[in-house]
Amino acid sequence: MIQLRFLKSPLLSSSNILSNFSPKPRTGTLLPHPVTKFKPLSQMDSYSTTTTSSSSSSSKLLFRQTFEKESSTYTYLLADVNHPDKPALLIDPVDKTVDRDLNVIKELGLKLVYAMNTHVHADHVTGTGLIKSKVPGVKSIISKASGSKADLHVEHGDKVSFGDLFLEVRATPGHTLGCVTYVSGEGPDQPQPRMAFTGDALLIRGCGRTDFQGGSSSQLYKSVHSQIFTLPKDTLIYPAHDYKGFTVSTVGEEIQYNPRLTKDEETFKSIMENLNLSYPKMIDIAVPANLVCGMQDLTSKA
Amino acid sequence: MIQLRFLKSPLLSSSNILSNFSPKPRTGTLLPHPVTKFKPLSQMDSYSTTTTSSSSSSSKLLFRQTFEKESSTYTYLLADVNHPDKPALLIDPVDKTVDRDLNVIKELGLKLVYAMNTHVHADHVTGTGLIKSKVPGVKSIISKASGSKADLHVEHGDKVSFGDLFLEVRATPGHTLGCVTYVSGEGPDQPQPRMAFTGDALLIRGCGRTDFQGGSSSQLYKSVHSQIFTLPKDTLIYPAHDYKGFTVSTVGEEIQYNPRLTKDEETFKSIMENLNLSYPKMIDIAVPANLVCGMQDLTSKA
Repeated sequence: MIQLRFLKSPLLSSSNILSNFSPKPRTGTLLPHPVTKFKPLSQMDSYSTTTTSSSSSSSKLLFRQTFEKESSTYTYLLADVNHPDKPALLIDPVDKTVDRDLNVIKELGLKLVYAMNTHVHADHVTGTGLIKSKVPGVKSIISKASGSKADLHVEHGDKVSFGDLFLEVRATPGHTLGCVTYVSGEGPDQPQPRMAFTGDALLIRGCGRTDFQGGSSSQLYKSVHSQIFTLPKDTLIYPAHDYKGFTVSTVGEEIQYNPRLTKDEETFKSIMENLNLSYPKMIDIAVPANLVCGMQDLTSKA
Repeated sequence: MIQLRFLKSPLLSSSNILSNFSPKPRTGTLLPHPVTKFKPLSQMDSYSTTTTSSSSSSSKLLFRQTFEKESSTYTYLLADVNHPDKPALLIDPVDKTVDRDLNVIKELGLKLVYAMNTHVHADHVTGTGLIKSKVPGVKSIISKASGSKADLHVEHGDKVSFGDLFLEVRATPGHTLGCVTYVSGEGPDQPQPRMAFTGDALLIRGCGRTDFQGGSSSQLYKSVHSQIFTLPKDTLIYPAHDYKGFTVSTVGEEIQYNPRLTKDEETFKSIMENLNLSYPKMIDIAVPANLVCGMQDLTSKA
């Protein structure tokens, strides 16, 4: 097992990044239920001016979900805003919306350290290459099993840390051979409820296709049932795509209502083999680019 | 001031709905930091099996944001899931996505009580009429100043309660004469941070146009500055639309980075007067329909 940990200096040596350091929960600074005074509201006469914030154990995470309309892709921004450096990471950035996402990161005063992919996408070009060309020091991350180039390769059981928060890496192959799900950490100082960034392994009331890039319906079925459906039922599901306008689901909902994965394995395999989907229109552009983590232009220019 | 309160019986008499009852914070059942045992995770060897949930004061709210692609409209679902009836409301539902949203409400076991609009939309037909035809007992809500028909009319200072949670009504005219912002309640048993459903008054890094439906740039400037920018800076901004793929912002961000509303009033008015926007393509269909809260088909059929 390796652990990727953002330390105070952004210039990490390989030995620091890949060390087996176990993060220690930071509990000394947690103030349960701080009371904050807000200024009185104009034109309102019936509200008290004192309120109580929620538990600070979850308030360290800054979280944003953004959407790219053409490929219906969600990108996720996570940052530890209680850490002095405000280290941040992006999951599944899209090339076309890199400027939008980098601008928000700049406005919020965050320090982007990782640009991560859940897998080699076939429907859009990842933004990681562009991000690396615009923000020196950012490291790209993808699974070792993806066969893609990246600064850092992760495997099942690894942790990706940013400040005092971390994501677990869970291997969830089946849509592609190298798919992983990033799950927010377990522990009292990690966000509650937990969050699972499932890529195309589990979609809201659906799942990714399994007919190319080393896909396997049997493997996908096992991945979702053993690695995602075993999480607490209130775990939030944040997929790489949604085509119907949903933004989030939960493990409990998908266990109960996913029209494919609630079936037994044989029925699931039969469903997946009879989808009759057309050839993905972007695949011949996207996959070669994503196999070098979006560095194709920089490589060809060099 | 009136208060709209969902009581245990869904068949509310008018006198109950419009009473001046002040909701009492329900604190007796709040358990600070309950400890929950989760089952051990397969293939993972380094995680503890005990975790602590965040403050239960915010965990009563079930919240969902859904998106309608054609008009780039966000619909919001809010429910008090700690209340035995799980009363729910929808803000700015769209006719085309009513079935999607009602299905989620059904799956989650919620009881829809209100279908609310922030204003008379010009770019899509509200889903309130369809919802009322499909779910008997649901009441439509819009501001009195909108001039639109609805079951219930709200004014500045009113509260819309669902279970033990409530929304404040703040008059924020300027995009239209009848625009309101619904703000989640203040108090220790209400969600933290607060949430403002701003309609088209304040968009993420933008605002609604002010050149029709009784719009006024001067009025919009005053509305946003006095009613939205005075909220705590961590208040989440959930607008009726976004065209760039953003899903949420905060009061603090918009105070600092909104390209229009950070300007002085004269500059803002000049910006709004020179937008040179085309005539809204849906306005001649949407506004008449929305002035009867989407009941046009039922009215004509009757």
